[in-house]
Amino acid sequence: MEGAHGANGNMGGTQEDYQVEIAVVEVMHKVVSPPPRSSLDKIKVRLKETFFPDDPFRHFKGQPPKKKWILGAQYLFPILGWAPTYNLSLFKSDVVSGLTIATLAIPQGISYAQLANLPPIIGLYSSFVPPLVYSILGSSRDLAVGPVSIASLIMGSMLRQAANPKTDPYLFLQLAFTSTFFAGIVQASLGIFRLGFIIDFLSKATLTGFMAGAAIIVSLQQLKSMLGIVHFTKQMGLVPVMSSVFHKTDEWSWQTILMGICFLAMLLLARHVSMRRPKLFWVSAGAPLTSVVLSTLLVFLFKAQNHGISIIGHLKSGLNRPSWDKLLFDSTYLGTIMKTGLVTGIISLTEGVAVGRTFASLKDYKVDGNKEMMAIGLMNIVGSCTSCYVTTGAFSRSAVNHQAGCKTALSNIVMSMTVMFTLLFLMPLFVYTPNVVLGAIIIAAVIGLIDVPAAYYLWKMDKIDFIVCLCAFLGVLFVSVQDGLAIAVGISIFRILLQTTRPNIVILGNITGTDIYRNLQHYNDARRVPGFLILAVEAPINFTNTTYLNERITRCIEEEEDVEDNEAGLRFVILDLSAVSTIDTSGVSFLVDLKKSMEKHGLELVLINPMGEVMEKLQRANGVHNFYGVDSLYLTIGEAIISLSALQKESA
Amino acid sequence: MEGAHGANGNMGGTQEDYQVEIAVVEVMHKVVSPPPRSSLDKIKVRLKETFFPDDPFRHFKGQPPKKKWILGAQYLFPILGWAPTYNLSLFKSDVVSGLTIATLAIPQGISYAQLANLPPIIGLYSSFVPPLVYSILGSSRDLAVGPVSIASLIMGSMLRQAANPKTDPYLFLQLAFTSTFFAGIVQASLGIFRLGFIIDFLSKATLTGFMAGAAIIVSLQQLKSMLGIVHFTKQMGLVPVMSSVFHKTDEWSWQTILMGICFLAMLLLARHVSMRRPKLFWVSAGAPLTSVVLSTLLVFLFKAQNHGISIIGHLKSGLNRPSWDKLLFDSTYLGTIMKTGLVTGIISLTEGVAVGRTFASLKDYKVDGNKEMMAIGLMNIVGSCTSCYVTTGAFSRSAVNHQAGCKTALSNIVMSMTVMFTLLFLMPLFVYTPNVVLGAIIIAAVIGLIDVPAAYYLWKMDKIDFIVCLCAFLGVLFVSVQDGLAIAVGISIFRILLQTTRPNIVILGNITGTDIYRNLQHYNDARRVPGFLILAVEAPINFTNTTYLNERITRCIEEEEDVEDNEAGLRFVILDLSAVSTIDTSGVSFLVDLKKSMEKHGLELVLINPMGEVMEKLQRANGVHNFYGVDSLYLTIGEAIISLSALQKESA
Repeated sequence: MEGAHGANGNMGGTQEDYQVEIAVVEVMHKVVSPPPRSSLDKIKVRLKETFFPDDPFRHFKGQPPKKKWILGAQYLFPILGWAPTYNLSLFKSDVVSGLTIATLAIPQGISYAQLANLPPIIGLYSSFVPPLVYSILGSSRDLAVGPVSIASLIMGSMLRQAANPKTDPYLFLQLAFTSTFFAGIVQASLGIFRLGFIIDFLSKATLTGFMAGAAIIVSLQQLKSMLGIVHFTKQMGLVPVMSSVFHKTDEWSWQTILMGICFLAMLLLARHVSMRRPKLFWVSAGAPLTSVVLSTLLVFLFKAQNHGISIIGHLKSGLNRPSWDKLLFDSTYLGTIMKTGLVTGIISLTEGVAVGRTFASLKDYKVDGNKEMMAIGLMNIVGSCTSCYVTTGAFSRSAVNHQAGCKTALSNIVMSMTVMFTLLFLMPLFVYTPNVVLGAIIIAAVIGLIDVPAAYYLWKMDKIDFIVCLCAFLGVLFVSVQDGLAIAVGISIFRILLQTTRPNIVILGNITGTDIYRNLQHYNDARRVPGFLILAVEAPINFTNTTYLNERITRCIEEEEDVEDNEAGLRFVILDLSAVSTIDTSGVSFLVDLKKSMEKHGLELVLINPMGEVMEKLQRANGVHNFYGVDSLYLTIGEAIISLSALQKESA
Repeated sequence: MEGAHGANGNMGGTQEDYQVEIAVVEVMHKVVSPPPRSSLDKIKVRLKETFFPDDPFRHFKGQPPKKKWILGAQYLFPILGWAPTYNLSLFKSDVVSGLTIATLAIPQGISYAQLANLPPIIGLYSSFVPPLVYSILGSSRDLAVGPVSIASLIMGSMLRQAANPKTDPYLFLQLAFTSTFFAGIVQASLGIFRLGFIIDFLSKATLTGFMAGAAIIVSLQQLKSMLGIVHFTKQMGLVPVMSSVFHKTDEWSWQTILMGICFLAMLLLARHVSMRRPKLFWVSAGAPLTSVVLSTLLVFLFKAQNHGISIIGHLKSGLNRPSWDKLLFDSTYLGTIMKTGLVTGIISLTEGVAVGRTFASLKDYKVDGNKEMMAIGLMNIVGSCTSCYVTTGAFSRSAVNHQAGCKTALSNIVMSMTVMFTLLFLMPLFVYTPNVVLGAIIIAAVIGLIDVPAAYYLWKMDKIDFIVCLCAFLGVLFVSVQDGLAIAVGISIFRILLQTTRPNIVILGNITGTDIYRNLQHYNDARRVPGFLILAVEAPINFTNTTYLNERITRCIEEEEDVEDNEAGLRFVILDLSAVSTIDTSGVSFLVDLKKSMEKHGLELVLINPMGEVMEKLQRANGVHNFYGVDSLYLTIGEAIISLSALQKESA
């Protein structure tokens, strides 16, 4: 089984230099210390691995200065990458997809703004400026940018704690713009300081539960417009909303309910058709706008606004006004604003980056996470100064964009132009649009966020992931949107800490007739080696787990000594460190103490294959404690056992 | 190198049952799935590993019921373990050590109570009842129980935010007792619910910095009595104290300063002598009481209280009074009380358990961490009802106890009786004891907490541990005692999370002429195998690191493809999962996606040696995605390379 694979380089000449000063039995392979590096070098490598794992400037190396400038400009403005080679056939595809997502963006923009307790027009503004910014800065070709349901919901509910959107709409608007500004700052900072891994802490499990809970909360809020209730609760939770609904049965309007059910059925049917036949994506893409047009016509023809159906009313024509003068940095509201900005920023960033990555991997191109964060952040900063609230890449619209065959970010520009046209000329047409149809559009949109198969998959794969998902779901429903999220993230992190605190310790045995050592409980043909206890620690050794490791190893030894047929008695404890990637000062002290306490009990502790960093620290500790000697370090378990058996025979 | 170690059991008959359904090339060893276990079994094992790693009830198994009862009683009351075999020679040793620690406990008790802004008598009360309780419940033979400096400081400073000990001493006392009650509840709960690992989160590095900072803060507070200042700041930080000291130079009293310096010099000298010659431990053990007696005589003879030297004054004789009626559960103070109880409880528990473990390992007996927590917790609960404030095992006094030759917890009873005698008959003698000598005793006691060699060791071993230590130190000095601690714990935890988020990925090479594969950057004689990229992931794969792993592996492949001399081109990517102890749903999805994206690029992904849990989840995922087949799983890297090379030749 040896050397059958053509690796025939000879021994490196410099190897002697790095060799550990401890002589090991002749035939064996030596555990050497890694090549010496300065602390500065180590810090450099560590920083690079932490902040630049994708090495974004790799392509810059060895290029002439001019080329470097071009690459740099293309890095900052991805539009420069595709614009020069743009052609008519790409343009055709982009126009089709751009128009398609515009038909979705207009009704959804109006609806989501209402979800955030903002005037409907703000939703349209937010579908005009941010897509333009993104098309210049963003690296995803499929992302359709605009307001999204979850972020709208969170912003609306968090800001409502500080200001009442009914009685003080101007203050509420100020808070919304300032929160959007902060969200942009947070997003851009995460990108600039390459802290994008923060959003990784929202696991798939957390998001599945959170999205489902939020979708239900959002749908419940629509009961106001779906039932025509005028005096609705301001709270978000399942219990207060249901109580409000059934305490206001006198306000229910049958005309509204009838209209709502019809349009909701139509929208869901369209969604069902499109899901069954992906080619008919335009059915569900066009359904919202069709519903708006139809319902507006119905109201207009039957003067339904006089029969209990509430309508949007007059909307001002014209493009976004500058809003930087509306940014409010008052200390009274700063806490709420920053918290709202942080939560909506991270949530919308997660959605945007995830959507970008999903479609990039489908089309096999690359999206740079940190670059995307800067783009989305800058887009929201610009947005907050031009009367837009928080926006990101929306999953549903991006999917439609992708299915409609978009090729570049130009589809966002086409969408943006369509929205501009609407803002300039079509606003009077929305006067008679009934609120009930907007509610139906929202419900139909968010229902897709409830992903039961994903939850079932979590249950099948990993019970704790499922618990995280469930906690996020129940937390959102019964506590609050942001607390539900916090609980789920807390459990996820606690789980990781628990894994570090209680690392796996495995007893290994020899697979008969080979040099392979594997877990005794896993491999049935693995056998104990008499006189040896072979343990593998499968985690970094640090302050959180040294106490546990100590207790656990002591127990293993006691249990091993209890095994009757082990007549010769236990002589050696072999600790396989192959899976110990790092160690800290407590970990080193633990090994030193373990070695000493083993000696007290007449046992010898042998270490196998310490990694580079672990080896370095052991050597440094050995300089102080001088705790391991000639026979304490081996490269493989097999070599340790041969050598120690031989030594034992000699001494016997 | 094969099978030379006498492991000659034959293949297990049941192995076929568990074998994975995938056929692997004939000669190779198969990766089997672990023996099937029910979810309930898995949860049981997991819970046992998390909460009962030391398996405390192991000795109960297979014993007759009567024996079980005795073992149970001995578990709850360790005194029943040693009392029946107690003899005169043990008693002699215990009396000597008990009297020795009593001479320390009396002056330190009075001093530490003042540090906590409590009446001096409370310090003596706290050296009477808790040691009695501990001697019945505690399993350490060396622990000397009583008030300690750090916990006194923290309690004093945290409670001062809620009540002024000068103007409202009764309320302050109530708060102190109630906090002690909560501290006891926290400690006992950690023990009962076997959550003792919580205190492991205070690493050696954190404690080194924290203790040093706290020692300086404590010493600074003594400037009040050492300089004789009357109007001293109520703040704790370095800056306000120094400013207060130099703004009140008019209050300095030269008589006090002279006396303070003399006694401090004497105490430090005694400490120095005992450290040089451990046999002379009684020199430093007796010095505080000698100082108290000497200084009291001096004041009495020279009527120094009339010359600017402040004295303790009249102390009431008599034993502890019940104080359960003083426990205050008022909502105004409940927040402060619970926070103080939590922080002092955990800090004092950490000290007590660490001291117990240290001396247990010196004398080679075992201390059950969770059992100790219950004992210390119960001791504080009882203490809070009998006019005691928070107590634990003190490091300095336990060391003296150990050196004086204590054998059992009876030395605590002897100490307690001595304190009782003092309380009943000797209290009038303390009237003229000057406060300055108490300050000197505290400084001499806490100076030992500043452990510069330990900090230097941290610097040498691990830079990040040193940073944690430094942050704790500076945080305590310049922010506040509890915030300094919180900052250091936060950094320690963040470091662990960062290690999970950015796991090591190592490129392996073959060590020429062997079947061993090791890190190319570590082992100079390791060689790349042409056509193969061998990667080892050295951490659990979970939601925090899948994005990173994806980017990092992509980069490795691109870099490998850039290597020019690799003419044949890269064909296989081998992922060694030996060090991946667990995986979650995101991790499984990552592997599935990686496999698919490799295939798109004409590469084949091969997995090596998945652990039990990882293997199970891969199989479950394979049921859904069917992503790995015949040639995708191998037990060792060597076997994978032989088999894949053969396959490649066949197809060529």
